Amino acid sequence: MEKVVSLCKRRGFVFPGSEIYGGLANSWDFGPLGTELKNNLRDWWWWRFVQSRDDMVGIDAAVIMNPKVWEASGHVAGFSDPLVECRNCHARFRADQIDLAAPCPNCGKKGMFTEPKQFNLLFQTSIGSVEGDKGRAYLRGEIAQAMFVNFKNVLNTTRNRLPFGIASVGKAFRNEITPGNFIFRTLEFDLMEFEYFIRETEWEKTFEYWLGEQKSWLEELGFDLSHTRVREHEKDELSHYSKRTADIEYQTPFGWKEMFGLAYRTDYDLRNHMEKSGQDLQYTDPDTGGKFIPHVVEPTFGLTRLLLMVLLESYDEEGDGSDKRVVLRLKPALAPYKAAVFPLLKNKPELVAKARGIYDGLRRHTPVAWDDRGNIGKRYFSQDEIGTPLCVTVDFQTLEDDTVTVRDRDTKEQHRVAASDLVGIIGKSLAR
Amino acid sequence: MEKVVSLCKRRGFVFPGSEIYGGLANSWDFGPLGTELKNNLRDWWWWRFVQSRDDMVGIDAAVIMNPKVWEASGHVAGFSDPLVECRNCHARFRADQIDLAAPCPNCGKKGMFTEPKQFNLLFQTSIGSVEGDKGRAYLRGEIAQAMFVNFKNVLNTTRNRLPFGIASVGKAFRNEITPGNFIFRTLEFDLMEFEYFIRETEWEKTFEYWLGEQKSWLEELGFDLSHTRVREHEKDELSHYSKRTADIEYQTPFGWKEMFGLAYRTDYDLRNHMEKSGQDLQYTDPDTGGKFIPHVVEPTFGLTRLLLMVLLESYDEEGDGSDKRVVLRLKPALAPYKAAVFPLLKNKPELVAKARGIYDGLRRHTPVAWDDRGNIGKRYFSQDEIGTPLCVTVDFQTLEDDTVTVRDRDTKEQHRVAASDLVGIIGKSLAR
Repeated sequence: MEKVVSLCKRRGFVFPGSEIYGGLANSWDFGPLGTELKNNLRDWWWWRFVQSRDDMVGIDAAVIMNPKVWEASGHVAGFSDPLVECRNCHARFRADQIDLAAPCPNCGKKGMFTEPKQFNLLFQTSIGSVEGDKGRAYLRGEIAQAMFVNFKNVLNTTRNRLPFGIASVGKAFRNEITPGNFIFRTLEFDLMEFEYFIRETEWEKTFEYWLGEQKSWLEELGFDLSHTRVREHEKDELSHYSKRTADIEYQTPFGWKEMFGLAYRTDYDLRNHMEKSGQDLQYTDPDTGGKFIPHVVEPTFGLTRLLLMVLLESYDEEGDGSDKRVVLRLKPALAPYKAAVFPLLKNKPELVAKARGIYDGLRRHTPVAWDDRGNIGKRYFSQDEIGTPLCVTVDFQTLEDDTVTVRDRDTKEQHRVAASDLVGIIGKSLAR
Repeated sequence: MEKVVSLCKRRGFVFPGSEIYGGLANSWDFGPLGTELKNNLRDWWWWRFVQSRDDMVGIDAAVIMNPKVWEASGHVAGFSDPLVECRNCHARFRADQIDLAAPCPNCGKKGMFTEPKQFNLLFQTSIGSVEGDKGRAYLRGEIAQAMFVNFKNVLNTTRNRLPFGIASVGKAFRNEITPGNFIFRTLEFDLMEFEYFIRETEWEKTFEYWLGEQKSWLEELGFDLSHTRVREHEKDELSHYSKRTADIEYQTPFGWKEMFGLAYRTDYDLRNHMEKSGQDLQYTDPDTGGKFIPHVVEPTFGLTRLLLMVLLESYDEEGDGSDKRVVLRLKPALAPYKAAVFPLLKNKPELVAKARGIYDGLRRHTPVAWDDRGNIGKRYFSQDEIGTPLCVTVDFQTLEDDTVTVRDRDTKEQHRVAASDLVGIIGKSLAR
């Protein structure tokens, strides 16, 4: 874990948020490489679960919704953690994560904890100039509600038939006491999620189907499924809206942790919003004309934590001494750069110019890196640890016959190929 | 304008936010087609200004930053609008946008306005369980500060040399009294922006360069530049940090309005953050070893409003009577669907199966729509108004020789092509 965190900082995947001002709670910013990796995960997901499917559409909804949404959903009343405060240093802790008989982990004083009190996790703000209840609003604590609130609009404009899904990618905010663990759990985070609307009778079949699809995608991303497990929620652990929930967990250095969730939310949300809003959110069977409220199976994918887990899964060390290298074995479609281009020698203008031409040509098609520092071995190592699948070296032979050396990140094998074939070779490697 | 708004609602580009609960201020959600169009604009920009360039990297930063960032930037003290309130109905208005001698536009009473008062535009919230000043935080009112605060981290990890840029795409939030105009100005909105770091002597040249690039991109997106103009900010209108600012404005039905901004921010932000944070944010010249604070030229692109302007620019009506059609003349790279596939007749299973096979094959490569409702003419019209560039019809001849009819959105011309050529034809149309 320390190695991954250190790599993230050193190479620009993840920086502490507001670092020059001493940071802020457990907040993080994504640097150049982390942003590309995160976008690649997002785009893969969007393609895999939305665009390439016939039964799914995407929406992109506001973070600040009408507060009635959160009253109807039960979040204003029930979305809370039990907190205790140390009367001495005023540090706050989750009552379920701390030994109330032990000294305060912050100041060391004993017996100073208050009684546990439920603390709501929705960030509050106010709209307009009126502070207080009148203009009160919340930052969304989950993105799911946007799909329920827009259900009728989507149905009316797409005329989709059951079963179908509404998907979204976006930020959610939770005012939590976070236990740290880098970007695993943060105050604001990106979720990828869809609500899959079905007839009640189909829920078990649908649940199994999406559990299978979640696992399949993990394999496509390069995960070894033996590093994951499915954990069924116990009856007393289920959310108020759910009849069955399962988490796909990943074996992190800090224990088995949720990566994806899957919940059968019944018709709880649509029924609730229908009652509270007075709008008809029923679906009309196009064959029989019968009306009913669809049921919902909800697969959730935490994008921010998935990025961490992808880094943990693909981080590898190999060799000894001067041969030792760190390799990020990312699928090419996820890698920030798809290739790097080097001139063999930096002080030979004709090599540099030739390499630059090849680099500029590739850059029009795909993200590529340029490196002319140090020796070739160091450049390989530098690209290996950020996961660049291919390194292209331009040498004196290139000047004669327009061939280059292509070196593979994982096998370290080198091949001589025509420079004109590079776009095709890289393109082929990107198949998802 | 009304036609575009109505199209947006009817076909699922944009819905009123939280509509089933009566909406919320001027907030909007993007429906299935609007989300795809917005993502396509975002991805084109990211490719055009970040990935394909040698001198630009992207970051993705938190919405909630340390409040010291906003104190240092001047936003806490000076980012405000002058508001008046009607003492009778308590409606609030921007003092600079209302006639203070006229009756209240809301309740009609006269002489009830309060004195104008500066109202800060940053949304406030609080972190942790402590309300009030101690845990106070703000939702970012612009995304630029993230680039300044992360300047040193980016410099250290990329070792970029001047000139270079740091780019970001993301949400900003402003607690404004919005004048409406659909999605032109909203409480939360997506910005695409970069800070381009330079030596002070280069600022005029750099300013002109980016103004040219902003215009070039507009042309690439399909804008007629005669619908745009450059408006230089007057001296007394310049922000406190800027020596020169120009807006690229677009001629909307509600007047000339800013679409892009371009500001020379001098070294104001880095200098300020350096003083306030006590961190060294200077750049070291790799040749001379000399240290200095870089200057900045900042091109800003409002993604949410650009989407509106793209819709306004591409909306077209043509023909009369039953031949009348609405066409969204979107560049293919922007269109939500790149093609639509139809079986000529819905009640011929062999045609439907054949068309379905072609549809499924295309769907693996690119977003495509399926339609088997009504007659072919109606399906064309339905795709024209959402901007689908190509319609593919499968008929009886297809069953014999595997050719299909491809109909062009703009010319309405039809060609017979081999079904196996479709992926290539669509791929070629997507060149940006």
